[in-house]
Amino acid sequence: MYDVQRIRSDFPILSREIHGKPLVYLDNGASAQKPKAVIDAVTRGYAEEYANVHRGLHTLSSLATERYEAVRGKVARFLNAPTEDEIVFTSGTTEGINLVAYGWAMPRMEAGDEIVLSLLEHHANIVPWHFLRERQGVVLKWVECDAKGDLDPQAMIDAIGPRTKLVAVTQMSNVTGSVIDVKSIVAGAHEKGVPVLVDGSQGAVHMPVDLQSIGCDFYAVTGHKLYGPSGSGAIFIRRDRMNEMRPFLGGGDMIREVTRDLITYADPPMKFEAGTPGIVQTIGFGAALDYMTDLGMANIAAHERTLRDYARERLGGLNWLQLQGTSDGKGAIFSFTMDGAHAHDISTVLDRRGIAVRAGTHCAMPLLQHMGVGATCRASFGLYNTVEEVDALVSGLELCRDLFA
Amino acid sequence: MYDVQRIRSDFPILSREIHGKPLVYLDNGASAQKPKAVIDAVTRGYAEEYANVHRGLHTLSSLATERYEAVRGKVARFLNAPTEDEIVFTSGTTEGINLVAYGWAMPRMEAGDEIVLSLLEHHANIVPWHFLRERQGVVLKWVECDAKGDLDPQAMIDAIGPRTKLVAVTQMSNVTGSVIDVKSIVAGAHEKGVPVLVDGSQGAVHMPVDLQSIGCDFYAVTGHKLYGPSGSGAIFIRRDRMNEMRPFLGGGDMIREVTRDLITYADPPMKFEAGTPGIVQTIGFGAALDYMTDLGMANIAAHERTLRDYARERLGGLNWLQLQGTSDGKGAIFSFTMDGAHAHDISTVLDRRGIAVRAGTHCAMPLLQHMGVGATCRASFGLYNTVEEVDALVSGLELCRDLFA
Repeated sequence: MYDVQRIRSDFPILSREIHGKPLVYLDNGASAQKPKAVIDAVTRGYAEEYANVHRGLHTLSSLATERYEAVRGKVARFLNAPTEDEIVFTSGTTEGINLVAYGWAMPRMEAGDEIVLSLLEHHANIVPWHFLRERQGVVLKWVECDAKGDLDPQAMIDAIGPRTKLVAVTQMSNVTGSVIDVKSIVAGAHEKGVPVLVDGSQGAVHMPVDLQSIGCDFYAVTGHKLYGPSGSGAIFIRRDRMNEMRPFLGGGDMIREVTRDLITYADPPMKFEAGTPGIVQTIGFGAALDYMTDLGMANIAAHERTLRDYARERLGGLNWLQLQGTSDGKGAIFSFTMDGAHAHDISTVLDRRGIAVRAGTHCAMPLLQHMGVGATCRASFGLYNTVEEVDALVSGLELCRDLFA
Repeated sequence: MYDVQRIRSDFPILSREIHGKPLVYLDNGASAQKPKAVIDAVTRGYAEEYANVHRGLHTLSSLATERYEAVRGKVARFLNAPTEDEIVFTSGTTEGINLVAYGWAMPRMEAGDEIVLSLLEHHANIVPWHFLRERQGVVLKWVECDAKGDLDPQAMIDAIGPRTKLVAVTQMSNVTGSVIDVKSIVAGAHEKGVPVLVDGSQGAVHMPVDLQSIGCDFYAVTGHKLYGPSGSGAIFIRRDRMNEMRPFLGGGDMIREVTRDLITYADPPMKFEAGTPGIVQTIGFGAALDYMTDLGMANIAAHERTLRDYARERLGGLNWLQLQGTSDGKGAIFSFTMDGAHAHDISTVLDRRGIAVRAGTHCAMPLLQHMGVGATCRASFGLYNTVEEVDALVSGLELCRDLFA
């Protein structure tokens, strides 16, 4: 039994008021709130068990190392990765994808080589590839979604040519909530010998992920969207890809030996983790994964489908609201525009009613250009949201229509 | 009046016991413990004021942005940087120096160009330059310290040749505690038209820093050594160097516009801060700087000089202990070896008495090779340590001598 009220009581911030109204937090696509279990893990990490990791033999260092390294297994199990040695800790998806761009793609791509990516991508899965275009003449091949926001996996596969070296695709759009059939894309790309990077920033938050089934080469997640601390995250990198990669960040902990003239590197995954890592936020990230696992990803997904269905019905009933992205199988992320009202103004009015939504281009400018809109408002739901909050959103939007339209 | 007992009571972890003995934490060179003010700022950041920054108009996002951006000014004031726009947030010194290596050095250095660096450097200020050697034939020119661990600034300046493009030097050795006259090095290097990067990982923790006086081009600090959260940090980059740099990490928040074919970047410092940053750990970093500022860096430095003088006298009196690094003006960092006892064994015995020291190569292998030792034990002091803890260390070392020597 998924008791959303009990779950809400786990999140301290959800009991606060905004402008005298209960907080209705619908900005989960940008970042999720944190349960007490995560906050407590962070506090305990600093107040009772803190030291630097890996290099110390004293008790606190051993303890911190144990807590920190245990998270590698938690991430692997959460994503059903083959082994935990294929999990690299990062500060988030952005660092994870840059690690692949600099460590794997940069040394092996030449002018004219191609990267296939979808128009649904977030800037985190666009800008690192633009770097390769600017700096070494790599060609970006874009595959469009249809009017509903669906992406045909076969279109991605068909876009792969003899010069294609990588496919980069999100599992779920942060703007439209569209869910991509990444497993089919991986199967088709691998038949053509092309590796696939999947941006799991949204996908891993909203559905069970099975990397052994998906079969992708790279899968990046970000802790702060997974109800964990800011500055935490991880990327799965298949062992054979790891072995092809050169290191990215250089510093302590990722080397085997350094002399004046020579350097040898530690084995993966340490090879890709330089310097003192995000010790306590990674421990907190592990607590967040424990929390989600205890609730059950299938239960979370079912709850969010209920929210999606209800929000789709209620928002769809507002004929003065334009929903951007209407894919049948989408997640509970709704972008919309309203004639006569700017997204920023809608957001401001909603905020006066305690409702937090995002307004802007959502770090997905190519998609918004494709949809022909300058900015949208976005209400993105999480595991603690309720149907009553959908009602509050609709009521707030009706006020916006009265004010602006 | 510097009341060290009152200060100690600000640090929750210092009241815990290890193996039934009061914790004597002398591993500050690796990472410092956190005062309650920092832990509370982190807790509050998650429990009351959390949202993603910069992109939201709703109340929580505005609040988090305000708290987060306020830290830029705190860093600038702490280091007396000319402007806060020259402060880039990082996950620590390692990311900061890699930002300079990838964003500034990589595109402007060719085979045969040189980087001058001292043998006192930490791997964070070595490995990124080894990358440039491995990948594009840059030459690393090393300047040795003397037997006491002192580095002659003129030797650094003299090592600069017509092909030298950068000087990279630490302000304080994490192994010997040697303090480098970086101001003289900067003056000499600038006369020859060569920029200087200063690794402030240790320096900023133990002495007042005045960047307007030092005049360096880059100055990197790490939050977790400054009594702040793990995964926080900043780098000062002089405006003219910023303008020469290309972006490093690509993602959201650092762009102005992205289309399928083109990209333009935000102005610095945002240009160098991609994706969702370490929001709450940066806010906690600000609380740590407030804490240190309230104590007064001159007072902290004076207290640590007292510790250094006392530790030097007591450790220097142990004729069976070899102190590695005996610079007159050193900070309160003591590396040592003992004939017949491995550093790891010493560390383990001390840990049984509650004393946390580090054993190993301290991410400074070239220096240890130069000193002719395989590993050292290191006791590194911080603002909350006491002369009684020096006595405890000496007593523990006497036990080690009885056991091993």
